[in-house]
Amino acid sequence: MKRAVVLLSGGLDSTTTLAIAQQNGFEACALSFSYGQRHEAELTAAQRVVAKFNVRNHVIATIDLRVFGGSALTSDIDVPKGRSPERMSADIPVTYVPARNTIFLSFALAWAEVLGAADIFIGVNALDYSGYPDCRPEYISAFERMARLATKAAVEGRHTVSIHTPLITLTKAQIIKRGADLGVDYSLTCTCYDPSTNGEACGECDACLLRLKGFAENNIHDPAPYRRSGATV
Amino acid sequence: MKRAVVLLSGGLDSTTTLAIAQQNGFEACALSFSYGQRHEAELTAAQRVVAKFNVRNHVIATIDLRVFGGSALTSDIDVPKGRSPERMSADIPVTYVPARNTIFLSFALAWAEVLGAADIFIGVNALDYSGYPDCRPEYISAFERMARLATKAAVEGRHTVSIHTPLITLTKAQIIKRGADLGVDYSLTCTCYDPSTNGEACGECDACLLRLKGFAENNIHDPAPYRRSGATV
Repeated sequence: MKRAVVLLSGGLDSTTTLAIAQQNGFEACALSFSYGQRHEAELTAAQRVVAKFNVRNHVIATIDLRVFGGSALTSDIDVPKGRSPERMSADIPVTYVPARNTIFLSFALAWAEVLGAADIFIGVNALDYSGYPDCRPEYISAFERMARLATKAAVEGRHTVSIHTPLITLTKAQIIKRGADLGVDYSLTCTCYDPSTNGEACGECDACLLRLKGFAENNIHDPAPYRRSGATV
Repeated sequence: MKRAVVLLSGGLDSTTTLAIAQQNGFEACALSFSYGQRHEAELTAAQRVVAKFNVRNHVIATIDLRVFGGSALTSDIDVPKGRSPERMSADIPVTYVPARNTIFLSFALAWAEVLGAADIFIGVNALDYSGYPDCRPEYISAFERMARLATKAAVEGRHTVSIHTPLITLTKAQIIKRGADLGVDYSLTCTCYDPSTNGEACGECDACLLRLKGFAENNIHDPAPYRRSGATV
């Protein structure tokens, strides 16, 4: 069984990506990060997902992105609430973490090299997060070209690295449909940028609003716990 | 004064690169890593260098590459000693750390974005370390192309990232000549893969042998402390 490194935040997108990697016949090795994010509830969710999906190889890498600052997710900047979809896509949000996907993919590349794996899965999405530079297809292609020159395996011509982005052109509603068809239990996942300490989502940040809209468009109830009962769009 | 992020391990190459960045008129912001390397003496050297070069902005980012294993520098594999230059370049050494430069450059990119800097300096060298895939010019070019698509600045068209590699085509002897001409005090630097706890170099690992040969070719005495007095090639 071929191994693949799957970046797993514990959110809806990365959990769906994990399900797709397993469906494609890969032994998924999950990689999560403790990076000084305000929402450590993500990591608890990642551990629930790993247990449910029988992932035997799960690494949580500790890196401290707070040393650089510059993002609402790793510093004291307020997470914006109640924004319209138009407003969200108008500019790069303060929740953007500088070079985060580049750092995450670099760690995935390191682990893939040690595992002898040539496949990396990441649940980036170019539609709902059009403002994030490192979620765009041209960025992913450029990372893949770089990765194919970066490792011992590349020099020895043993294999080349592939970066799989199965969600990149899907809407949030399509992602949820895909996951629901694969039997993903979304009650396990945590998407919110500002959850309470017991893991309840706020229902008002960009990530919650996009998620709730995606469930509503599928006429499915979002099974995740919210602080206000009956949070909806 | 334009800022540049300079990757600084505290070794001979990165210290020379820092001197070149300052000579080129940049305000150098130094970035070092505590990455589970066996030779923490490197970080002590980096701090000496930062003080000597009046670098006001120095970040030591903590990342734990030991979670992946796979290298003599971060796990219990023995560091090879007493190898000939031919032997060193014959294959990729066990001191190679998977995807290390990709990870280091990714962090530099994150900090550059927060600082508003467009320039990153790294002291990679393609001659003496021909076995390291991530020291080759084609790899650096590919990283630069990826970086130019990765950041908020790239999306907004404000500036593009440049990765400077002033040492990439130089021999170790030429690097030392360049640094000596710039007045670099090499007694501050630590190059050894296996130094003692008080920072004395072993004089026998690949890095020490290449360094000693470089000084010998310049007819300069290496001022760094060695465990055996009079270590030489």
